[in-house]
Amino acid sequence: MNIAIAQSGGPTCAINASLVGVFKQGLLTEEIDAIFGSINGIEGMIGDELINLKSIIRTNEDMELLRQTPSTMLGSCRYKLPDYDTDPVIYEKIYKTLDTHRIGVFIYIGGNDSMDTVVKLSAYLQHIGSDIRVIGVPKTIDNDLPVTDHTPGFGSAAKYVAASVQEIIRDCSVYSIPSVTIIEIMGRHSGWLAASTCMLRANGEEAPHLIYLPESDFSAVQFIEDVEKEMAKHKAVIVAVSEGIETKGADDMAEFQSGATDVFGHKYLSGVGKYLERLVADKIGCKVRSIELNVMQRCSSHICSKTDIDEAERIGRHALRAALEGNTGKMMFFRRVSDIPYAVTIEMTDAADVANLEKHFPKKWISPEQNQVTDAAIAYFLPLVQGELDICMRNGMPVHFQRPLQMR
Amino acid sequence: MNIAIAQSGGPTCAINASLVGVFKQGLLTEEIDAIFGSINGIEGMIGDELINLKSIIRTNEDMELLRQTPSTMLGSCRYKLPDYDTDPVIYEKIYKTLDTHRIGVFIYIGGNDSMDTVVKLSAYLQHIGSDIRVIGVPKTIDNDLPVTDHTPGFGSAAKYVAASVQEIIRDCSVYSIPSVTIIEIMGRHSGWLAASTCMLRANGEEAPHLIYLPESDFSAVQFIEDVEKEMAKHKAVIVAVSEGIETKGADDMAEFQSGATDVFGHKYLSGVGKYLERLVADKIGCKVRSIELNVMQRCSSHICSKTDIDEAERIGRHALRAALEGNTGKMMFFRRVSDIPYAVTIEMTDAADVANLEKHFPKKWISPEQNQVTDAAIAYFLPLVQGELDICMRNGMPVHFQRPLQMR
Repeated sequence: MNIAIAQSGGPTCAINASLVGVFKQGLLTEEIDAIFGSINGIEGMIGDELINLKSIIRTNEDMELLRQTPSTMLGSCRYKLPDYDTDPVIYEKIYKTLDTHRIGVFIYIGGNDSMDTVVKLSAYLQHIGSDIRVIGVPKTIDNDLPVTDHTPGFGSAAKYVAASVQEIIRDCSVYSIPSVTIIEIMGRHSGWLAASTCMLRANGEEAPHLIYLPESDFSAVQFIEDVEKEMAKHKAVIVAVSEGIETKGADDMAEFQSGATDVFGHKYLSGVGKYLERLVADKIGCKVRSIELNVMQRCSSHICSKTDIDEAERIGRHALRAALEGNTGKMMFFRRVSDIPYAVTIEMTDAADVANLEKHFPKKWISPEQNQVTDAAIAYFLPLVQGELDICMRNGMPVHFQRPLQMR
Repeated sequence: MNIAIAQSGGPTCAINASLVGVFKQGLLTEEIDAIFGSINGIEGMIGDELINLKSIIRTNEDMELLRQTPSTMLGSCRYKLPDYDTDPVIYEKIYKTLDTHRIGVFIYIGGNDSMDTVVKLSAYLQHIGSDIRVIGVPKTIDNDLPVTDHTPGFGSAAKYVAASVQEIIRDCSVYSIPSVTIIEIMGRHSGWLAASTCMLRANGEEAPHLIYLPESDFSAVQFIEDVEKEMAKHKAVIVAVSEGIETKGADDMAEFQSGATDVFGHKYLSGVGKYLERLVADKIGCKVRSIELNVMQRCSSHICSKTDIDEAERIGRHALRAALEGNTGKMMFFRRVSDIPYAVTIEMTDAADVANLEKHFPKKWISPEQNQVTDAAIAYFLPLVQGELDICMRNGMPVHFQRPLQMR
């Protein structure tokens, strides 16, 4: 029997580690011959674009390098599988690829859209009487998948964000004039990653002085009041804001996002950080700047979390085992057993419990003022960022696993 | 005799290491009693705001933590010392502080503006017959100081930029559609930091496919042609651009740069990345994004260069020695003896040879097409990013030296 692996959705630091986990378990399983990688997620299954991973990942060093390499080695896609009734041909194409290459197990590493694919594809295969099994492995820096305690990729993103925000705190503290610094953090509609900056308090930092999440009630008027209150206490006020915050009520942010146009006539599509920066400049008039941590949040493997990378590999291994035991249409997940000592078990759930759903940051961990995160959240976050990998360096720079030429 | 140290200009990863160098050498010098830190650069000397560094930096661990802590522990300023003829009172205030605290040596760590202060203050002190000595220690991530082979702070910035650009290369490679990613890199009017991304070629990377510097002849028309040519060869085109690029001739970007200037008359530079992003969107119409590495370039100590930090400490120690030997009005600098094996000597030059001057990236290292950096530059850059510090971690995050409460 052969197996196939694919990666989907946005890049993370841990998605290649999950690939390595499946791959290693595949090597250790006698009944498995070829281990295929599907290029660009499910698209490679539709178009029969597979590569033989054993010909690319040859040594233990290759596996370690791949664990440390961010982004998706096999490429990615944002392709949403249509319903079978709408487009049966797509399903037949996928089945043909699976059948041609004698693939008995398909492991899909991705977020909640990818779990939708796991649900649909496994249902189709069962429907046609095939015993090919489909298992999902979670990943996303947004940490917004239901059921699982946390998602692979999140811990490394949180570790990078914490280290960078701490360094920005130092950077902002040098001048004698009052200032406000707004740091825009990823997370889509959930505030997990922005909230995780509360961990810095465990190392004695007071900042970020304000943290705003999509789950908190945000008002621009209240925001300015909050900033003024913090400016009375701190020379350099640091604000962490989730990219997905929304205003409720009268004071709408729309006016700030759709104002000016550039010389090409394009609207300035600025993010929430820039918006808040202009708001502070306009209403308070002090020195203010906004910083976007941008894609570095999801790909800064040089400071990845060892806990995250090790767990990502482990959940990949478990996924293949679960498939070989006959399961299909499932997603593997972490159940936290204890914070101290930190311990998780790996279990499985119906992928349908996860597909297309979002898990939000708990309201109980948001301060009554809606502008901070409580200490209880620190105990949740801290275990996820523990430990550093022994990063392989050459010429003073990290070494990445290089994809074969035909994939570049 | 007592001594005083101050830090000035923009934050770097290495400026505290130079402080530690002066401090350690001070501890080891029998004739030196108190070691004062001047708060916020020369402003602390004018306003008599000094702290006793021995009461703050108490242990070897403190010194190691401070070496690893980015930004300026003593605060900073952008204060430009007026000419003596214009404002003698300022000089008298500084002298009073020096005299009151029996300070025989003043070490100023900073960039070319700070060297202007070293020139003026040392001249004044000699003029009034004082034997108080003033020595400058270079620092800037821009690497734009004359005379010295390179500046402390640059190597760490280059290491962060290389690692991040490499990770962004991975991040950009996942989707199957063609894309252009523009990374805006600091450096003011000099292209050293953007140019240093050529080092990635030493690790087998082809990207950045295009590198634009203030020293290269830039034209928007040619830029679009360059990008189109690279798009024919690569799915994900990566462009590194220095924040200070300027157009010559008809297609002017002046409108995209803010007219604001700082107290030294320097223009605030921002937005070149966004400008080029809009240009690509308008003229080519493909998927395009721009990324600003922002202040993380100058404060990401978690991936600092050991060579840089060690050299920064060493040049601080040499500065104090030079002062004790009777020198004044000098700046310490690195002379490179050899690339392989890498070796530098530390010497001194008149601060006047450096003050208010800029060293540009050599034209001979820019490709004839004005859009790349030649391999010869790699040999210059590589030694500066070698080695990693053993970063002290607590709770999965770097530990920073915390300033005393009165300074926060």
